[in-house]
This record gives sequence, C-alpha cells and structure tokens, in this order.
Amino acid sequence: MKIDDTHYRTIWVDGDGWTVVIIDQTKLPHVFETRALKTVADAAHAIRNMLVRGAPLIGATAAYGICLALREDVSDDNIEAASELLIGTRPTAVNLRWAVDEMVYAVKNLPREKRVIAAYKRAAEICDEDVEMCRMIGVHGLKLIRKIAKAKKGKPVNILTHCNAGWLATVDWGTATSPIYQAHEAGIPVHVWVDETRPRNQGAALTAFELGHADIPHTIIADNAGGHLMQRGEVDLVITGTDRTTANGDVINKIGTYLKALAAADNEVPFYVALPHTTIDWSLQDGFDVPIEERGSKEVTQSTGRTSKGDVITVDVAAPGSPAANPAFDVSPARLIAGLITERGVCEASLNGLLGLYPEMIDDE
Amino acid sequence: MKIDDTHYRTIWVDGDGWTVVIIDQTKLPHVFETRALKTVADAAHAIRNMLVRGAPLIGATAAYGICLALREDVSDDNIEAASELLIGTRPTAVNLRWAVDEMVYAVKNLPREKRVIAAYKRAAEICDEDVEMCRMIGVHGLKLIRKIAKAKKGKPVNILTHCNAGWLATVDWGTATSPIYQAHEAGIPVHVWVDETRPRNQGAALTAFELGHADIPHTIIADNAGGHLMQRGEVDLVITGTDRTTANGDVINKIGTYLKALAAADNEVPFYVALPHTTIDWSLQDGFDVPIEERGSKEVTQSTGRTSKGDVITVDVAAPGSPAANPAFDVSPARLIAGLITERGVCEASLNGLLGLYPEMIDDE
Repeated sequence: MKIDDTHYRTIWVDGDGWTVVIIDQTKLPHVFETRALKTVADAAHAIRNMLVRGAPLIGATAAYGICLALREDVSDDNIEAASELLIGTRPTAVNLRWAVDEMVYAVKNLPREKRVIAAYKRAAEICDEDVEMCRMIGVHGLKLIRKIAKAKKGKPVNILTHCNAGWLATVDWGTATSPIYQAHEAGIPVHVWVDETRPRNQGAALTAFELGHADIPHTIIADNAGGHLMQRGEVDLVITGTDRTTANGDVINKIGTYLKALAAADNEVPFYVALPHTTIDWSLQDGFDVPIEERGSKEVTQSTGRTSKGDVITVDVAAPGSPAANPAFDVSPARLIAGLITERGVCEASLNGLLGLYPEMIDDE
Repeated sequence: MKIDDTHYRTIWVDGDGWTVVIIDQTKLPHVFETRALKTVADAAHAIRNMLVRGAPLIGATAAYGICLALREDVSDDNIEAASELLIGTRPTAVNLRWAVDEMVYAVKNLPREKRVIAAYKRAAEICDEDVEMCRMIGVHGLKLIRKIAKAKKGKPVNILTHCNAGWLATVDWGTATSPIYQAHEAGIPVHVWVDETRPRNQGAALTAFELGHADIPHTIIADNAGGHLMQRGEVDLVITGTDRTTANGDVINKIGTYLKALAAADNEVPFYVALPHTTIDWSLQDGFDVPIEERGSKEVTQSTGRTSKGDVITVDVAAPGSPAANPAFDVSPARLIAGLITERGVCEASLNGLLGLYPEMIDDE
C-alpha cells in the first residue's frame, strides 16, 4: 500500500539481491524507518522484538530468515539450527512454523549449491502468495460490506477493528483491512473504529497510520469503548485478524479480541475474522490448547510517544513499584464468530465450515 | 487511608476553618500535591478537570462548593447560580445533583446570617456520612470475600476491579476497595487485578497507588486482559464502583465496565458493584437514559508519565492527524450483575432488590 506517494510492501529484497529490508514497526507512527536484515539472527531479532509483527508478516520474515541462514552455511545442521531459532521467537502465531516448514521442504532435497537460490525463490513466492491471499480476502469480505452498505442506503458502514491486521501485518493489503481498502476503492462509504490496542498501541499507532495514509475515515477509541459503541448501534460489523485459528474455528488473536467478540454477540453485531489458510492450525481442535505468549511488564507500565519538540520518548505511566502482567493474546470461541473470511471465501467458524473451503484437509483415514 | 504513615481523607477543611483542601488527582501517581479551593469556581474547576473524580467525592466537593459560594454571597440567587454551575460540570454522576440538593435543602429556609455555618456543617456531615457508608459497604462486601476465601482454602482471592473506586474516589475507604481493605485487615489473602483503565489510567495511576500504599498484592493489566484471565480461572470475583445506578439496577460506570461484565457472565465469575445509596438514581428505570459524557480526544491520543529524569510530561501516542472519540462511561445492564453492595447490605440488581434495602423509596401512590 502507499505511504505518501510511494508503494511499499512490508518486506523486500534489496538491490544487492540478498539483503532483506523491513519497515521498523516499533518506530511507527512517529518515524518511518527501514531496517536491513543480513543474518538469520537479524531476522530472529526483528520478529522477537516486533520490528515486524502480524502472523503473515512473521511468516514471511521467517522465510527470509532461512535464506539468510543458508547464505552463511547451507548444511542440514544449519537449516535445523536456523529453524529452531526462528520458531522459538514467538510462540503463538502458527504462520511462523508453517513458513519455516515450507522453506525446509523447498531446499532439503536439493544439492547444496542450489539451496540458496531455491530458498530466495520460495521466500519470494511465499510473499507473493500472501499478497494474493490477502487480496482475495478483500474480494470476499467486500461482499459483506457491500451488503451492509446497501441496507444503510448511503450512510457510512461502521467497521470496528482491533489491533493491526492491516497491510503492515502482512506483506500487502492486510487481512482485516483488505475488505476495507477494497470497499473504499469501490466508492462504498466506510468509517473504521480503531481500537487503540494497549499495551503496544498497534491500533492507534499502525492501523490509524495506514488508514490515514489511505484517506479512509477512521476514529481511534480506547479499547474500553467498543462495547458502548455497539450498544448504541454505532458498529455495523467487526473484522479482526488472527494469529492462529484452530480447526474448530476458535480464534486466537491480540488480547482484548474476546471482549469485543462478546460485545458483538450481545448486540447482534456480526463479528468476522479474516485470515489466509496459513493461519489455520489444523492440528488443534481447541483454542485453549494454544500457548499464550506472556510479554514484558514494561509494555503495560510504560508508554512511548512524541514530545511537543518531536522527540520520541518512553515514560512511566503507572504507580511506581506496582507490578504488571502482559498476556499478549486471548481466545475468541467459535460460537461468538459470525464467520471466517479466507482467500477462498467466507465460511462458518467450525471444522465443517473450514473443510467446506479446504476439502483437501479432510482426513480420509 | 494512609499514604506512607499519614492518614488522609480526599477532602478536608483547612486550619483557617473555611478553605477547602483536596488532593490533586491529575498529578497522581507521579506527584502528591494538595490544592486549596477558595471559591465555587475553584470547586467547579476541580470537578470539571478531574482534580477530584469518583461519584462520592464529586458529591462532597460540590457540597463544599456551595459553602464557598455562600461565603461570598448568601443570597438565594447566588445559591441558584452556584448550584447550576456545579451541576453542569459533569453530566453522568448523580451524586453531584444529590449533594447540591442536600446543601440547598439545609440552608434555604434559614436566615441569611446562619447559612454559611449551616452549609459547612452539612458538607462535613455529607463527608462523614460518606465515610460511614463506605465503611459499611466494606463490612457487607467482606462477607462475600470471606466466603470465597473459605472455598479457596488459603489461596489468595483474586479480585478484578476497573477504574478507581477506591478511597480516592470517595472521602475515605472507597466503594469497590472497601471490602478489599477490610479483607486485608482481617488477614484474608487477596490479590487485585487492576485494569489500567484507559484513557485516563485511573487504575494504573490511582488504584495501584492506593493498593501499593496499603501493601495489598496487586497486578496492573491492560484493559484488554480481564476476559482472558477470567477464561483461565484467574479471577474469583469482580467488584467495581458506579457513577450512577438506575432504579432497575443498570450500572453506569467508567467506559469498559460493560465489557468486563460480559466476560464475567460468560465465565460465571460473580460481578458485583459497590455503591452508597447516594449513587442510585430512583428517577430512572433504564440505564440507557443516562447521559454519557463525551470527553476530549487528547485523553485518547496522548499519555502522561514520568521520564527517566523524573519530569512529568505528556506525549502523543497515536498516528499524527488521526481523530479520536472518548465516551467516558458505559451501561452494564442489570442482567449481568450478580449483586449490588450497598451500605445496607447486598441485594439483587433490580428494583425489587433495591426496594428490599430501601423500603422508604416504595411509592405508595
């Protein structure tokens, strides 16, 4: 998508043909800065410290992490070490493991001298596939928005989203935002309620940044406000992303998603989750089996922002000495979800719903 | 309650016999600073700009605001003007109107020369009554905690609270915190999950400050985290305060309370609301009839905290140019509430429940 007049993806290979470049998302929305990744350790650091985040982008970065590892050492041992390093960076997003498995599969049976080229080729494909999947999520999600727009007869469709499942969370387009971008391009009036998404503020910092640069009307709200807006009829539709969706349709996503899913159910607001198939964990039937990452307490007790002079600084906002806990994800049970928007279409949040779109996953045994 | 070794109330009359002193709560937890109120305009400013906040403390401050007005001019016209000024400061808390009505009633039939003394006497009574009501809320709420503690056999009782309904929100003891303070004094192990309560952070700033000074184990969490903790069995009980409770038991409280009430219901965690009778609006049968204050957007797009050098500064945290909305309260419908803890006991959140405790409110017509 565009920042000012330049089109960006979130990750690309530099002109030298091998250095991987990312946007340092920890600096947004205050400073736009790119960062070069030259080693697998750089890639692991970028994922662990959330210079890149969002399930699909984590997968893409891990894929290029394998490429960078292979440049240094093409041995099987090194592939294994790099895989372990990358998979260990963050426990919840399943795309990470999926992408690493794809990369290993693409190179493991090749002679050593062909591995680096094959790896870069597969990583580029993973990125291109992600862009196409996100585009198709938008095509299918657009139909939902169009239907609501018709019923609203020209009034803007109010869509609430949580965290950032935008193009910054993927390679391009985003998952939850893809239908929104496509509705806007189709001339359908939309307005987005942007949950600020404490403690890391990905909504106020990233989603608002994206929507602002795309000239899409939006309003930042405290995470506490979404239920109130739904009670008052100010939300027509919720669309979020997901870090992992289990085979039964339970959605693991940024902490606080569950609260919005409850409010949507209580107020009969349709709650949709947008995801490419790479985010589905077919091995799990229960969202509560997914490990939930516990992050550092300073993310809760501190806040980072711009001073009136333009410096970016971090301040302590909480009572001195008080401890904090920081679970990063929660589980929205399938029963609360109106549907899953995938690259193949919209389905019920259930095993049957998912198998209807992905019949190749039906176990024939 | 105590700060270090000194016992404080949140509002008192200075040694001169007439100046009113408050703790400037906009400076907490960074700086402890008191502020002298010498005119009704000072009192109105303190309420409007949230130097004092919390329904009972707003009422007490308004009561002293009438005293300060009378010192300048004891006329009926001035009483009316002062009442209007004070009631207009914040639209949601009903204690404000209650306290002003009490003050007017106490002085209106007196000769002019007796009005000032009578006003200070009634304001002091309102404060003392509030302290006693809050103490009794603790006595009744303690029974609920004691029962859970018994079932947990020595393990700490985990109580979640939202915003600050602590002693800083009242004259002393607090509403939601009074049972917690009394449980702690009774040797019952408790641990409090403190919602940070964006956008003004009253949880992380005020509740954590209070609990820290009382040596009560507590953990600050993002507002997004409470549902997750309830899903995992980490919350035994929720207690919040309220800015206004309607006669049918709907609870209007700090934005985000509704989301926690939904999560509590979904996970069978008992959700209690603590309030003195002065917070009940007997004239309304539906929480959605209560006006919800919309506050400034900078409360959402900015954050205030301490730098590493100890300066207190405000930074912009959101994407530049993005607008924000800031509704300050929401409605938790009575159906989600396990009970109301009042100074007279615990009752069902319903008209019948409330009339059982306040039979004098039964309309004989």
